[in-house]
Amino acid sequence: MSAAVQVIDAEIDVREAMRAIGAETRAAARILALATAEQKNQALNAAARLIRERSIDILAANARDLADGKAKGLGAALLDRLMLNPVRIEQMARGVEEVAELPDPVGRVLAAFTRPNGLSIERVTTPLGVVGVIYESRPNVTADAGALCLKSGNAAVLRGGSDSFHSSAAIHARLAAGLKEAGLPEAAISRAPFSSREAVGEMLEGLGGALDVIVPRGGKNLVERVQREARVPVFAHLEGVVHVYVDRAADLDKAVKILVNSKMRRTGVCGAAETLLVHRDAAPAMLQPLVEALIVEGCAVRGDAETCEADPRVTAATEEDWRTEYLDAIISARVVDSVDAAIQHIEAFGSHHTDCIVTEDKATAEKFLKEVDSAIVLHNASTQFADGGEFGFGAEIGIATGRMHARGPIGLEQLCIFKYRVRGDSQTRG
Amino acid sequence: MSAAVQVIDAEIDVREAMRAIGAETRAAARILALATAEQKNQALNAAARLIRERSIDILAANARDLADGKAKGLGAALLDRLMLNPVRIEQMARGVEEVAELPDPVGRVLAAFTRPNGLSIERVTTPLGVVGVIYESRPNVTADAGALCLKSGNAAVLRGGSDSFHSSAAIHARLAAGLKEAGLPEAAISRAPFSSREAVGEMLEGLGGALDVIVPRGGKNLVERVQREARVPVFAHLEGVVHVYVDRAADLDKAVKILVNSKMRRTGVCGAAETLLVHRDAAPAMLQPLVEALIVEGCAVRGDAETCEADPRVTAATEEDWRTEYLDAIISARVVDSVDAAIQHIEAFGSHHTDCIVTEDKATAEKFLKEVDSAIVLHNASTQFADGGEFGFGAEIGIATGRMHARGPIGLEQLCIFKYRVRGDSQTRG
Repeated sequence: MSAAVQVIDAEIDVREAMRAIGAETRAAARILALATAEQKNQALNAAARLIRERSIDILAANARDLADGKAKGLGAALLDRLMLNPVRIEQMARGVEEVAELPDPVGRVLAAFTRPNGLSIERVTTPLGVVGVIYESRPNVTADAGALCLKSGNAAVLRGGSDSFHSSAAIHARLAAGLKEAGLPEAAISRAPFSSREAVGEMLEGLGGALDVIVPRGGKNLVERVQREARVPVFAHLEGVVHVYVDRAADLDKAVKILVNSKMRRTGVCGAAETLLVHRDAAPAMLQPLVEALIVEGCAVRGDAETCEADPRVTAATEEDWRTEYLDAIISARVVDSVDAAIQHIEAFGSHHTDCIVTEDKATAEKFLKEVDSAIVLHNASTQFADGGEFGFGAEIGIATGRMHARGPIGLEQLCIFKYRVRGDSQTRG
Repeated sequence: MSAAVQVIDAEIDVREAMRAIGAETRAAARILALATAEQKNQALNAAARLIRERSIDILAANARDLADGKAKGLGAALLDRLMLNPVRIEQMARGVEEVAELPDPVGRVLAAFTRPNGLSIERVTTPLGVVGVIYESRPNVTADAGALCLKSGNAAVLRGGSDSFHSSAAIHARLAAGLKEAGLPEAAISRAPFSSREAVGEMLEGLGGALDVIVPRGGKNLVERVQREARVPVFAHLEGVVHVYVDRAADLDKAVKILVNSKMRRTGVCGAAETLLVHRDAAPAMLQPLVEALIVEGCAVRGDAETCEADPRVTAATEEDWRTEYLDAIISARVVDSVDAAIQHIEAFGSHHTDCIVTEDKATAEKFLKEVDSAIVLHNASTQFADGGEFGFGAEIGIATGRMHARGPIGLEQLCIFKYRVRGDSQTRG
């Protein structure tokens, strides 16, 4: 954090300033909610153009953040997350344009019915209102989240991490300028200009009723704090303890292919597999080849007694392993007595995010799809498909494992709610 | 509250006991969520039968509550709400059977699509999980809310008011017995056996993560406390400041009919009109007849200067009137310059519950339907249609004016969420 920012934080009343931002954003939300698809797309395309045109300014701001970060001693991984270059800026601009190309999610008729008294009732989508986005060092979240909110007619209050303070400000300025070009209020995408934790605290309180939902984007500590402290609803998942269950009726080749992709395609994503469950009847033929395939790819395996016996390179798992999201080239593995035991394990230790069964038995697959209570349940497909883009949603602001409003990828549709339009001919109630 | 109950409350740790109930209900929720429609209907029909068969026990319990209430000096209105008789018990039993007759909301495919890689993705409804219901003196809420939760596959923790303590317990016992007859866990409909406020406090905290949503059923004080203190999502409306806007292009006969029904059919319901707005161009011809029609029906009118001028029986409104939900034979009335001014008034003073335009001008009607940000917006129909039954939902657990998950009547469909079922043929992600 630069000295200038620290001074700003100290000098003004963060609480009051954040609430003022909330009120301004709330007022802008009403205008954005009623904007046409054309207006919103104009704003997005203008923002993308301005991000490209002013990329030198954005890179200069980013250089400042990088210098501050180095001075603070940030690690290489954090600095890489923070770093922008011409390719990343082009990706960011293109991402905003791609959101513009998606269908408008507002005003869709979800249901329409006519009552016996002649009343015609429609359930039609509307924006949620104001979305608070709290994120960490990746400055591109400013553009990604801002664009998704704008397209879905939601105003947004963005609060980026202090590490990316100047980069986020520079990107945000182009979103605001895009809104202005389209004749929309700049406050429809607001930014918390404070790097203090107090600003986050105010957002978790809801900015005096201004926020309808909060989306945390970042590591487990951030998500945990938001879920624990937020007084408004949250779209988030704390972790993805994702299972691949290889059934007695599995095809070994398919199982190997799906398991290796689920675990190793990218180990750091929330849809990466963390636990392998193998049916006891399949274990003699399949357990060792499955373990072998993982180890060949560089994955460490921590197993129960039977898995340890199957391959000497497996180390013993503790109960803690069944609850652990490694986000690394490590997997836990265990033999289960039945599909019911697999489901029970998943319910006991999983995180209701994404789980998969590999089997050729349709009835067993349907049982698993029905009984596993996770946002995404797959049959014979990699768990790494747990992604809004892969679902055809175009883009996502996150994946939710809560039980209200929406589960799974939160795309444009999930950023909407509905209201009822009722058309009558002077009906009265008896 | 009887002495016995007070002793119970004092002697055991309410917090611990409530959390144990929460954990037990959560475990039962998983079983109920997977129950077939037939099993759930069997439980509901058995409960209805047992409510009839054991009506003498229920009446005896109710007599105890009534005696306690009289001793405590409860008013006549409260005692009437509390009172059960054979007719009310029959209505209650019939209500449970009617819920059984509704279509099962679980397992419905909301969307199905196939991705270019061949993955078949379905969005399918599932229960929310565990619903906490906090209510006051009406003992029939035990049966109504319990039945709706059960049918939608949701477990429930019911916490009735201390006034109806014994009545609710007697009704709850029949719901539990119905579950048992159908081979379902009795804990799927739990009851907080405490009359203390501490039990409510525990529910507002979510019973250690056991509750997914809370539904308050009762007066404004209860709803306000729940909305303020709940750490879990809430389905509720604090009030219904409902408007009827009579446009310049209104038909006077229709306007009179709709207005009088909206205000006077029942003044104590949340969909009852509280404010009349009249377009300036319509005022000369319509304002007095509209006021006249209300006054003839026994409604007091509090108006702005122009409304006071139109009829000497109108008293002057203050700004507070525009914000007031009278729930009585009183209405506020004002002249507005345009449909935009009407919408602005509604957004400034309304409660996003239900609002109506009366006009023969289609374009103006569509503008109003689009721009008024309320759960229910009507054109040429009484606001008293704001009701799940009138919408064809069969029954409702309440009406929500929040912006997450569902707005408007909360029926069986709205007590569900969804998950994704993905079927593949060993697809992996590149």
